[in-house]
Amino acid sequence: MFDKRAAYGQVEHDIDEHIDSLVSFIRQPSVSPQDLGVRDAAELLRKTLDRIGFKSTRLAETSGNPVVYGELDAGADKTVLAYSMYDTMPADEPGWTVDPFAGTIKEVKPFGATLVARGAANTKGPLMGFLNSLDSIVKSGQEPPVNVIFAAEGEEELGSRHLPQFIKAYEKELKKADVLFFPFANQNTRGKVVLDLGVKGITYFELEIDGKDWGRGPTEFGIHGSNKAWVDSPVWRMIKVLSTMVDNTGNQVLIDGFYDDVAVPSEEDKVLVRKLKDTFDEEEVKETLKVERFVNDLRGVDALGKYLFSPSLNVNGIWAGYTGPGTKTLLPNKITAKVDIRFVPNMKVEDGIPMVRRHLDKLGYPEVKIRTLEGGYSWARMSANHAYTKALLSSMEEFSSNVEVWPTLAGSAPFSLFASPPLGLPFMCGGMGLGELAHSPNEYLVIGEGGPTGGLLTMEKSFISILDNISRV
Amino acid sequence: MFDKRAAYGQVEHDIDEHIDSLVSFIRQPSVSPQDLGVRDAAELLRKTLDRIGFKSTRLAETSGNPVVYGELDAGADKTVLAYSMYDTMPADEPGWTVDPFAGTIKEVKPFGATLVARGAANTKGPLMGFLNSLDSIVKSGQEPPVNVIFAAEGEEELGSRHLPQFIKAYEKELKKADVLFFPFANQNTRGKVVLDLGVKGITYFELEIDGKDWGRGPTEFGIHGSNKAWVDSPVWRMIKVLSTMVDNTGNQVLIDGFYDDVAVPSEEDKVLVRKLKDTFDEEEVKETLKVERFVNDLRGVDALGKYLFSPSLNVNGIWAGYTGPGTKTLLPNKITAKVDIRFVPNMKVEDGIPMVRRHLDKLGYPEVKIRTLEGGYSWARMSANHAYTKALLSSMEEFSSNVEVWPTLAGSAPFSLFASPPLGLPFMCGGMGLGELAHSPNEYLVIGEGGPTGGLLTMEKSFISILDNISRV
Repeated sequence: MFDKRAAYGQVEHDIDEHIDSLVSFIRQPSVSPQDLGVRDAAELLRKTLDRIGFKSTRLAETSGNPVVYGELDAGADKTVLAYSMYDTMPADEPGWTVDPFAGTIKEVKPFGATLVARGAANTKGPLMGFLNSLDSIVKSGQEPPVNVIFAAEGEEELGSRHLPQFIKAYEKELKKADVLFFPFANQNTRGKVVLDLGVKGITYFELEIDGKDWGRGPTEFGIHGSNKAWVDSPVWRMIKVLSTMVDNTGNQVLIDGFYDDVAVPSEEDKVLVRKLKDTFDEEEVKETLKVERFVNDLRGVDALGKYLFSPSLNVNGIWAGYTGPGTKTLLPNKITAKVDIRFVPNMKVEDGIPMVRRHLDKLGYPEVKIRTLEGGYSWARMSANHAYTKALLSSMEEFSSNVEVWPTLAGSAPFSLFASPPLGLPFMCGGMGLGELAHSPNEYLVIGEGGPTGGLLTMEKSFISILDNISRV
Repeated sequence: MFDKRAAYGQVEHDIDEHIDSLVSFIRQPSVSPQDLGVRDAAELLRKTLDRIGFKSTRLAETSGNPVVYGELDAGADKTVLAYSMYDTMPADEPGWTVDPFAGTIKEVKPFGATLVARGAANTKGPLMGFLNSLDSIVKSGQEPPVNVIFAAEGEEELGSRHLPQFIKAYEKELKKADVLFFPFANQNTRGKVVLDLGVKGITYFELEIDGKDWGRGPTEFGIHGSNKAWVDSPVWRMIKVLSTMVDNTGNQVLIDGFYDDVAVPSEEDKVLVRKLKDTFDEEEVKETLKVERFVNDLRGVDALGKYLFSPSLNVNGIWAGYTGPGTKTLLPNKITAKVDIRFVPNMKVEDGIPMVRRHLDKLGYPEVKIRTLEGGYSWARMSANHAYTKALLSSMEEFSSNVEVWPTLAGSAPFSLFASPPLGLPFMCGGMGLGELAHSPNEYLVIGEGGPTGGLLTMEKSFISILDNISRV
């Protein structure tokens, strides 16, 4: 019989070492979009698995970055596939007040000690927290309450390009799993736990107009800006092209068929949203995101409904010509925009790029090149009534009397790859703790206790509780 | 009596030294938009004036970069104000095949030896060529045929911000001048001389939407891209804003009043264009600019008419969000575009930015910030029938039987600052030689002789001829 309290006690004893492990992991950059330190981070992670006692540890090679793999057989009935990611976004955005890879621990009111670093929240913090919790279970002299198959990919921020390859190669091993668990920190800045029962799908691509393809404008390089008088501009062209894709607010997508397959909110979604009506804390979100108002001036659950149920078309970045200081006059030969679509049930991710292509062709913009940066993956959803969802909820309620259940996160994770055949796994995503500012400067994870949210200690205990509750499903 | 032939002979004797002087000048970067080496270049230039025998040489200080100033009194009747610029654009664009500041001399067919470097054409090459020509005149034991006041500014690429300050401070000295001369290389790649009798005006500014000013979108930093579902995008907003400014081709400006004051082509312009009908070499332009077709598929002098007589609105650069490799999902908090307007007679440059502001306000975009990067300056024109124009033409015809006269360049130079009161100077801009790819990678100036165009030697001789012809006006 697994003694959860003994494991909690061991975590309390080990917490300083655990913070050190996390800081070391953070100090090893693993920026997949820039190919910075990724394999070294994988190797470090594999050694951590070895140290804890995982067997069959390896870097499972793919055509891209390896998946860090290991098995911890506890002779238990249930087997958890712990899926996570060891790669992060770049930290090139302005506004960082610390070196994003230094592993700086900073007192921040009202949270106490926080780790301010790229990947602290998304997702090296929760990942290492999870491994720490297993380490303490083992050190407490017990077998874990479930068998654990660990698989952390190094390409989540590249759209999990080669995860299907890994799943195919390890199908036999992964089929032993009863449920997928993604360790995460689900508290908000006021301490409320927000459990998300799903994720949106995503496809990410670049749109580009190059004078060479267009047959108009400069074809080889940017030319003197005075030539605009008699030479076409790929920049103006792209502005006209993009402006056909959304309405004047930028919030309604005008691509034919974009909303056709939207089948949310479902009846169950509506039930969840009704419950959120009284508890959803709009101001907390605005404060955290530094946003003053939501689209169309929506408030409360009306705004939340957009977050949960609306597909989106976003320009993540755009660039052309001279972007340095001062005044260089230039007629650029090329312009590029990084665009993503987020999909909700029952949209099909494979429809995304063809829909954009048809839109461009219909309006007479065949020269716009679509460069797929990732194939993308589908949305995924779990029912609030599923036994594993209830197990997760029960663990959260052990630590907090303030738990909200949201139908989905607006963000994306490749749960659908595990949830669909051949594996068909139910999934759980959660844990105590607060991590914020993913993809933004000064991303952080709360480490210390005593503030409105749990720190690393509470997070690790919650992971132990989740594994324990899984064993009882 | 000035002996032109003796001076030509001296240039032939000195040409190797002259090439060395130019290469040394090129190797000293003077990138005003990036504040790179500008003052060192000014100092180098002042020493060159001293070496030639200029008096009263100095760095005439302004609130920005200094004007390099000197006087060469020949006791002549006529005084030329030789105006030029010693600053250049940045060389940060991709595609350079040599170090842009190395002063690389490269054999290029069919031209022979060319200097491939930032500033080679625009305008350190012609500037040093002009000083070289004076050096040889002096070395030939003669006084120049005219007195020369030399003034080279270091902020032409910043819109000549402080040139009015210099003109005011040196009004007494500059009033001694009879005519302004801007040394330039006016041949095209086939060897034809194209004399431009004017320049367009320019104003250059940044348009910016920042969530903070807008009160919508992320206000402090870019946030996770999944938030697009419920948070406004400054990028979509800017795309909508910019798309209101031009028609679907990007070539007709839709800002109220933009074309109201356009008073070209004038009767004299029409006469010049009629002459160009048979000689304008469309293919040469397309080859040089690497452009396959002109706006609206115009051909021949119809296309040229756009170049000469059309004001333009150009996006020189635009940027927002993540512009690195791969896939960072981000909802940017800010987007910036670098925009310039080119003015033709009789548009008023001071109307430009207020016109844009009115357009934005009228359409309900008060949040768009206009950041003026330079006050700008007006167009300037000389008549084909002016005595100084005829003097210039006569010099060009001394070296080439193939001379075209264009009413204006589409590019801009601050001639209006000298042509308007209190100086009211006529101006001349020209010389033999070929310089191309200003503001583009692999900018070059032909150095060697024997190709379809003149090299540095012919350029320098043509400057001597121009000074000689000025003395006869």
